[in-house]
Amino acid sequence: MPKHWSSIGLDLHLELDAAGGRRLGLESALRKAIRSGRLASGMRLPSTRALAMELGLSRGTVTAAYDQLAEEGYLTTRPGSGTSVAEVPIFGPIPSSPVPSAPVPRYDLRPGLPDVGAFPVRAWLGATRRVLASARPEVFGAGDPQGRIELRTALADYLGRTRGVITTPDQIVITSGFYQSVQLLSSLLQAGGVTAVAMEDPGHNVYRELVQRAGLITPALVVDSHGARVETLRQGTGAVIVSPSHQYPTGVPLHPQRRHLLCEWTRSTGGLVVEDDYDGEFRYDRQPVGALQGLAPGHVVYCGTASKTLGPALRLAWMALPPHLVSPVVEAKQQIDLYTESLGQLVLADLIATRAYDRHIRAARLRYHRRRELLLERLTAFPALTPHGVPAGLHTLFALPAKGPSEDQLLAECANRGLALRGFTELYHRPTGSRPGLLVGFAAATQNGYPLALGALLSVLADIAF
Amino acid sequence: MPKHWSSIGLDLHLELDAAGGRRLGLESALRKAIRSGRLASGMRLPSTRALAMELGLSRGTVTAAYDQLAEEGYLTTRPGSGTSVAEVPIFGPIPSSPVPSAPVPRYDLRPGLPDVGAFPVRAWLGATRRVLASARPEVFGAGDPQGRIELRTALADYLGRTRGVITTPDQIVITSGFYQSVQLLSSLLQAGGVTAVAMEDPGHNVYRELVQRAGLITPALVVDSHGARVETLRQGTGAVIVSPSHQYPTGVPLHPQRRHLLCEWTRSTGGLVVEDDYDGEFRYDRQPVGALQGLAPGHVVYCGTASKTLGPALRLAWMALPPHLVSPVVEAKQQIDLYTESLGQLVLADLIATRAYDRHIRAARLRYHRRRELLLERLTAFPALTPHGVPAGLHTLFALPAKGPSEDQLLAECANRGLALRGFTELYHRPTGSRPGLLVGFAAATQNGYPLALGALLSVLADIAF
Repeated sequence: MPKHWSSIGLDLHLELDAAGGRRLGLESALRKAIRSGRLASGMRLPSTRALAMELGLSRGTVTAAYDQLAEEGYLTTRPGSGTSVAEVPIFGPIPSSPVPSAPVPRYDLRPGLPDVGAFPVRAWLGATRRVLASARPEVFGAGDPQGRIELRTALADYLGRTRGVITTPDQIVITSGFYQSVQLLSSLLQAGGVTAVAMEDPGHNVYRELVQRAGLITPALVVDSHGARVETLRQGTGAVIVSPSHQYPTGVPLHPQRRHLLCEWTRSTGGLVVEDDYDGEFRYDRQPVGALQGLAPGHVVYCGTASKTLGPALRLAWMALPPHLVSPVVEAKQQIDLYTESLGQLVLADLIATRAYDRHIRAARLRYHRRRELLLERLTAFPALTPHGVPAGLHTLFALPAKGPSEDQLLAECANRGLALRGFTELYHRPTGSRPGLLVGFAAATQNGYPLALGALLSVLADIAF
Repeated sequence: MPKHWSSIGLDLHLELDAAGGRRLGLESALRKAIRSGRLASGMRLPSTRALAMELGLSRGTVTAAYDQLAEEGYLTTRPGSGTSVAEVPIFGPIPSSPVPSAPVPRYDLRPGLPDVGAFPVRAWLGATRRVLASARPEVFGAGDPQGRIELRTALADYLGRTRGVITTPDQIVITSGFYQSVQLLSSLLQAGGVTAVAMEDPGHNVYRELVQRAGLITPALVVDSHGARVETLRQGTGAVIVSPSHQYPTGVPLHPQRRHLLCEWTRSTGGLVVEDDYDGEFRYDRQPVGALQGLAPGHVVYCGTASKTLGPALRLAWMALPPHLVSPVVEAKQQIDLYTESLGQLVLADLIATRAYDRHIRAARLRYHRRRELLLERLTAFPALTPHGVPAGLHTLFALPAKGPSEDQLLAECANRGLALRGFTELYHRPTGSRPGLLVGFAAATQNGYPLALGALLSVLADIAF
């Protein structure tokens, strides 16, 4: 019900929107008029009696609205001189600076992502129902910085059973992603006087930068066909981050002899080994190789995540820690963000305990295995591209020949066609000595999208004359 | 089916648990025997043929198990000399160092916590069902560092409607709690060359320490009966954190004149105002005073949270930012933890859009109002205790008289009886000049627990001779 209001010294159009009640409507109209400058700073308002008559409202309504706006700072009331508009800046519409969010690529061959189209929606909902039905109130209150005991208990069993990790619920800490696990360990190491954390070269550049931001240097641990060359680790290196099951990005497992050397290094130097078991569940030619942590649980931090099995949106990851590190890590976690969100933890704990998590992984393993075989089969048409690594994980690295189109050229053409994958070169610590290649993730696309994405890749390769 | 195995040079008890299949059973038994030291380092194992015969297994099964354990580093295989136990440390059971998690207090009068016993379980489950039923796959994939657009859209409407915040979805950033909001702003300010962030005295010591950890100093902004004395803000102070609706912990709202002074300060100096609207939804004697941000949206960061309306376990909070700060804050968020968990954001967005959130808050407001009145009524029996602040929020501050039992004495006695509440003294920047008092949270207890908690408080006060 728009209304026109003209009064002593004022000529305004005050639209009263009655939806929220008369008083709220009047307040809102006055606020808008002040913000837009139609009611200028210092301008005196009519008396409550006059305005009430004018608008056909009760005087109490107008008084209440004036009081509210005075309380909020829009109006000033001085005894004797009535109510006037306060010194409020005049706004136009506020300019907006939207941050574009990364769009989902048309063809998705990004490494390191699972097929979120296969997210176990029904199982998740069922578990949510069970969790909420039995939740005591404290579940919604302040959380445990170490993580919910239900999830830690389920994980201790699961990790022992499937990954050969030797741990107990008391030695597990839940984090909001592997990213945060690395952050916590880095800050701990830095505070403990460590200056250098060796990292695989090539390796994950995001985590390398994260460790560096904590004030640590990251000596390169060169990777060859047997995994990280751990025999080159120095005495003064305080810690090392490795991916023994399936090195990222080359896809080779750490050779058994190097597993031993690494255990010897940690025992003789006291240096900490951080095991990034980012996709250890996915091995296609054989049973997955057990975690390195099982060989030296007092010296290795085992890191796992739900990002590669369910989806990164959950922000759930875990560490199985040597006993002496539990308290310091929990303290660091509390300092960093108090604790991780609780409901997701409880739902995941239910999925693991009911084995729905195992079933989901088993199904994904079958699917990804077929996808990997299809990828390799289709790429035999381009023998210049050499696949690397064992049948495992969510991606395969293809090395590019020295002659022929460059990695940049290929990536640019893929981007042109809406095809997302990753280059190899940028994963080297130093660009000199790096080798060109493509990291093709065969898990990220949906089941229907995968053949299309593969088709897009093949057409890029064909067009660019391999 | 336990079996005994004695073989060339070995006398072991190898228990084969057939539950997971023969091969897995053999692997697990060998791993355990090696870890326990029963199979010592360097000890030579029987040939696969001999062991297969001994155990009544196929030779392929034994070969596969040996291969697996060699791959994992437990066994060493050398051509010609067969398979032996590798150099693996001998473990006893790993000592555990459990970190005790904070127990739920018997009587809960902690300030700053809502009644999580009233968490809208059914509404949350219903919203989860809707969200999952309509979720596109990307929902489970990598999230948006700024926060899900669905939640930002719902909040822009909600905050405008209920708190007078002037914003758009593009100017909102979702965080994993107000704690993280402060962390993000602190790191941003610090990186931008700011050295000092003024903070209310008394005020929340947890956040003060958080700001200080970012390398900033926190000049005291003294609070009197009209809120923070913003006229004392200096030119060189880069930012200020205030709680204008209901100062924490004194419970006074910022006086309208001081709201103006603060807007003048930010406009003339360019200093940033951070508005902590931690419990702005809860006002019991009148409509809540609109957010300060509405007076100067280009200069004020509005901070809200779901911790006080639904529960801290959700780890969901938000900021409405001046446009120029959006990109830097989103970048900082990405650096700090990539992005906040997505499902909870979508469920909350659904609750806000369907107005279930409003209904929940309205019901909580009624309940807390009654609880506050009961608290004040029962405490009239102790006229030496002076209640402070307006009828709002989730707690009331009671100042203690100079004579009589000390705050320490009272807190100790409360703790003795399992009653959790908070002292006033520790919330002052400097203990000198602090005043003793009790912060009584009337929301934290469940509906049934509240009268009991109140009874416990009254009996402490009676016994300690007020």
